[in-house]
Amino acid sequence: MTRNATAFSEAEYQRRLKRTRAAMSEQGIDVLFVEDPSNMAWLTGYDGWSFYVHQGVILTQEGEPFWWGRNMDANGARRTAWLSDDSLRPYGDEYVQSTARHPMQHLAVLLADLGFERARIGVEMENYYFSAKAYTTLLDCLPQAQIVDATALVNWQRAVKSEEELNFMRRAARIAEKMIDGAIERAEPGLHKNELVAEIYRDALRGVGEDWGDYPAIVPMCPSGADASAPHLTWDGNTLKTGECTFFELAGVYRRYHTPFSRTVFLGTPPDDMKRAEAALVEGLEAGLDVARAGNRACDIANALAKPLESAGIERGARCGYPIGLSYPPDWGERTISLRAEDETVLEPGMTFHFMPGLWTPTWGLEITEPILIRESGPAEAFCNRPRQMFVKP
Amino acid sequence: MTRNATAFSEAEYQRRLKRTRAAMSEQGIDVLFVEDPSNMAWLTGYDGWSFYVHQGVILTQEGEPFWWGRNMDANGARRTAWLSDDSLRPYGDEYVQSTARHPMQHLAVLLADLGFERARIGVEMENYYFSAKAYTTLLDCLPQAQIVDATALVNWQRAVKSEEELNFMRRAARIAEKMIDGAIERAEPGLHKNELVAEIYRDALRGVGEDWGDYPAIVPMCPSGADASAPHLTWDGNTLKTGECTFFELAGVYRRYHTPFSRTVFLGTPPDDMKRAEAALVEGLEAGLDVARAGNRACDIANALAKPLESAGIERGARCGYPIGLSYPPDWGERTISLRAEDETVLEPGMTFHFMPGLWTPTWGLEITEPILIRESGPAEAFCNRPRQMFVKP
Repeated sequence: MTRNATAFSEAEYQRRLKRTRAAMSEQGIDVLFVEDPSNMAWLTGYDGWSFYVHQGVILTQEGEPFWWGRNMDANGARRTAWLSDDSLRPYGDEYVQSTARHPMQHLAVLLADLGFERARIGVEMENYYFSAKAYTTLLDCLPQAQIVDATALVNWQRAVKSEEELNFMRRAARIAEKMIDGAIERAEPGLHKNELVAEIYRDALRGVGEDWGDYPAIVPMCPSGADASAPHLTWDGNTLKTGECTFFELAGVYRRYHTPFSRTVFLGTPPDDMKRAEAALVEGLEAGLDVARAGNRACDIANALAKPLESAGIERGARCGYPIGLSYPPDWGERTISLRAEDETVLEPGMTFHFMPGLWTPTWGLEITEPILIRESGPAEAFCNRPRQMFVKP
Repeated sequence: MTRNATAFSEAEYQRRLKRTRAAMSEQGIDVLFVEDPSNMAWLTGYDGWSFYVHQGVILTQEGEPFWWGRNMDANGARRTAWLSDDSLRPYGDEYVQSTARHPMQHLAVLLADLGFERARIGVEMENYYFSAKAYTTLLDCLPQAQIVDATALVNWQRAVKSEEELNFMRRAARIAEKMIDGAIERAEPGLHKNELVAEIYRDALRGVGEDWGDYPAIVPMCPSGADASAPHLTWDGNTLKTGECTFFELAGVYRRYHTPFSRTVFLGTPPDDMKRAEAALVEGLEAGLDVARAGNRACDIANALAKPLESAGIERGARCGYPIGLSYPPDWGERTISLRAEDETVLEPGMTFHFMPGLWTPTWGLEITEPILIRESGPAEAFCNRPRQMFVKP
């Protein structure tokens, strides 16, 4: 019947619910309202590009979660989530992008009907989809409830991946390698950037073998030359040029699971400062991978990277990585741990990160990055297997 | 120097600032903080996939707007916005996805420094990127300010397009036609959905002639059969099948300007109920186009569409369109006017809509839609020029 519910075992979904409910108990949360589409999908399997209207999953300590969303999307929930029909609670289209009504008015009535009028309700205060207006409307409509911040409560439960999830990320890694291989192979002076990205997308979506490619939570980035001084410029119609460097930051995606990966191509002869930066960066990556071990801390990776960079006179001033896995736009990070000096989170086996020490100077950008898995013992496993270098095409 | 600032004339940007400032005055707003990336781009030209962290444009009654965002994205602002360096106000990476700090703490200090500690500050309460936490943090940090809801203040100024904007949308329309042509031509039993979308993306990004294709704010939708009962399911690796209907809902995009467009393909012989629905839908579309005239109201279009559908026993229960133009994920609508019975907004020349009366039943979905322009006189102009029908491939 459903398309994606079978993607994971029932035991896997039960594991997820159990972890999340334990975290709710610890924080004294009676009912959790989750609007983050990644969290919705992780808990229920729900998958669709419907997050541009308000929707969410309601989780209590017992029974199935509820899916709540726009009426026309209930069929999408029927086809993708493992929930029974009784657990779908849609609202009418008159609430959609209306100046007279807000969907949270509907949600408040539903929560009251479920017996949570005076409950302690957890909401994701820092999230793209739970707007300021959603919060104030919910406050107005449920004056007797206690609405508390449960930002990232579910995200933290996602940090350690199951074997079933790692299996998806390994498939995504094969797609990422294919995308990078194609980009490096095709890059040449005169090639229009949009034409190159067209081929990257084509590689991504065609996938590898039976594994079809899904859309990435961030579009492929591939700025060249001085445009690459800015990490988040998307493509345009300009051509690749001799003497310019282009970095490719992209992700292979298998059923919403992301494995981000970056490599850089130089057309012509790279200047000495880039070659020195490359050497320091690769040394830093390898030092970081070596300390990315269970029992060490997130900051240990950042500090190991920083040392050879500092020796080379490079101060990055930005975090060098974040957790990865199941994601929807606009971000493929999980927004919990950050690989930076002040983050002392202890690394656990099964955690997955994009170790992402991009270098951006006023005249060029250089990205050599690795998606990694923290193992039971030993240094991190790199999901992708490609030379850790800047590719030079003379 | 910059990549996109030259995309529009200086007069065009001045027009936009003037309109927005007039609306601010009307609402007694001293300073406007705009976090919606479409609004940021419309006012300043700023373009980049950096909206997954907090950023915004600060607009007062005088001088250049300020760009505020993450330090690493300031170079992106330098390369895409028409602003001078003095107008860029970046914050440090320690504010990014931190549990200890929030970027709004930085913004509050900046607003106070600019003299707005006790001002009436407009914010976009109902927006994807201005989170509930952003709002409460700003309230906490600026206790003497009056923080008021300016949701869609800028969006409403965008409703009537300039000739420069229409020029972009017409280019996007050529790309949309190419995408639909390719999808219909390639659709055949046995073709994997992801492979079809790979070609659609390739067509989209390669663009038409000199006009390179940009990424869409919503990925192409093309569900088949019963999956098409759900409007927002994205693709998977299944094959197209004889006896099934597939709708294509997609947008051509030229420099962030969207022209969404949909057509439907049936492989085999469509059932009678679909053919009747198709006939009623086409009649409704043409009736709607005919009343989509300056001086009429948004609801007139919805009511004209509803009549033939009702005669055919079809009740849609959803709005049938929304304004379109400059957009970033997750939505290509402008979130102001809705084409529905209760919306009495008067149509003005230069307004642009996606007239989008999708039909979704439990066993099939049918989409024949038109992006349209309200003209000075006469019925609406359809941006795309393709037969208004379900395409049947026996």
